[in-house]
Amino acid sequence: MVARVRRPTVAVVGLGLVGGSIARALRAAGHRVIGHDRPAVRRAALAAGAVSEAAPSLGAAVGSADVVVLATSPRTNRRLLPEVARAARPGAVVTDVGSVKRGICADARRYGLRRFVGGHPMAGREASGFAASSADLFRGRWWILTPDGTSAPAAVRAVRALARAMGARAVVMTPKEHDRVVAFLSHVPQVLAWALLASARSDRVAARRLAVAGPAFRDMTRLAASPRPLWREILAENRAEVRRALASLRRALREPRGPRHRI
Amino acid sequence: MVARVRRPTVAVVGLGLVGGSIARALRAAGHRVIGHDRPAVRRAALAAGAVSEAAPSLGAAVGSADVVVLATSPRTNRRLLPEVARAARPGAVVTDVGSVKRGICADARRYGLRRFVGGHPMAGREASGFAASSADLFRGRWWILTPDGTSAPAAVRAVRALARAMGARAVVMTPKEHDRVVAFLSHVPQVLAWALLASARSDRVAARRLAVAGPAFRDMTRLAASPRPLWREILAENRAEVRRALASLRRALREPRGPRHRI
Repeated sequence: MVARVRRPTVAVVGLGLVGGSIARALRAAGHRVIGHDRPAVRRAALAAGAVSEAAPSLGAAVGSADVVVLATSPRTNRRLLPEVARAARPGAVVTDVGSVKRGICADARRYGLRRFVGGHPMAGREASGFAASSADLFRGRWWILTPDGTSAPAAVRAVRALARAMGARAVVMTPKEHDRVVAFLSHVPQVLAWALLASARSDRVAARRLAVAGPAFRDMTRLAASPRPLWREILAENRAEVRRALASLRRALREPRGPRHRI
Repeated sequence: MVARVRRPTVAVVGLGLVGGSIARALRAAGHRVIGHDRPAVRRAALAAGAVSEAAPSLGAAVGSADVVVLATSPRTNRRLLPEVARAARPGAVVTDVGSVKRGICADARRYGLRRFVGGHPMAGREASGFAASSADLFRGRWWILTPDGTSAPAAVRAVRALARAMGARAVVMTPKEHDRVVAFLSHVPQVLAWALLASARSDRVAARRLAVAGPAFRDMTRLAASPRPLWREILAENRAEVRRALASLRRALREPRGPRHRI
């Protein structure tokens, strides 16, 4: 008989696009997955086979898990962290999937949560909610891990293994580096997609003709359909870095060399 | 015997991404297509069966065509217009596919070219050159026609029929309306794609991590690979409207309501 590696039981808190996709991907990889969300979402996740069990409370979800994944909004993840720390088993690893890492990583350090490792899969979509989730969302994507000096190496290994089990490639950054990088690669693009669409809609001539836009305009404004309340949180959490990246973008728009599009 | 409609012979001047795709699409629809470009491109187009004949000179290409399609850059299209007007057969229809319409339409009116109709297929791609051309490029896309008060109705019908033969849907605008609309839907997105990529590359931290960008960043910067010399011409030709649209974008980026991304 071949010895089988025991796959950790994972609690996923928040079963929206990202949490729902994590649950589905880990179920497909053979993990026991305990999901927690509002009752209607729990029922949908159970019915879809995305979770092994649906827990009616945060404590019930977290209490028997080897790894806890916080997949609500950045602000809610931070708010839940103390309760998760109390309810988690000794030795349980805690991670999150929020788009901003400095705040929650500092919180975890403050609470003495040595088995916390921040994470951020680079695999968003403009769709949201459990109905948009998919077991393939992370396949071939990067999953950024942001341990700080106090994170236990075994915790980093555990989260890295989960990312791999979902088909993602793990890359390690400091929380500070992460927040700066995603301001350029994710947060400013989101702001731009809204601004580009709002700008075309605000012009009385262009607004009547939005339908003739080619595929490039649609690609560049697809993110405008992203959920605004979530994004307001993300942008507020990463305010300083987004400001820096927007200032850089404004310089690039003025740059007479390089792109040479000065007009 | 069923009477067969005679399909017009079309001269395509410039066999790059758009001209090459027009030649392929019209050949596939049964038209006789005479192509003109540099010798190496002519050979490639002949070898690919994208043209029925390759003409060594502009005059030879234009002289036996029912419809002449100018598919070089906007500035070159304008420069070729007087010679095309002299070489074209009486009654031949002339159109172009440039991204800016006011200049060339005013030129055509000045030269008394009543059978000229400006055109602009909304089907660009970041790839360029004959090698990137495809008979399907225009399928399901809009083809903007910009007749002005002096364009002969028969010429508008002829160009509309060609657009339809290529699978496109024709829509009529004035040259002025066109230039304003595409500034918002095409020219500013192009400038933004360059600026977004240049901005991320200019940040010493983000530049090292461009590879972790998710699909949204790649969608939003795909146009940055578009040919710069062509785009410098387009932006210079449509300077006033692009300025207006960029000013509108800057306002949208500051807008505290609507998008609510003020940070």
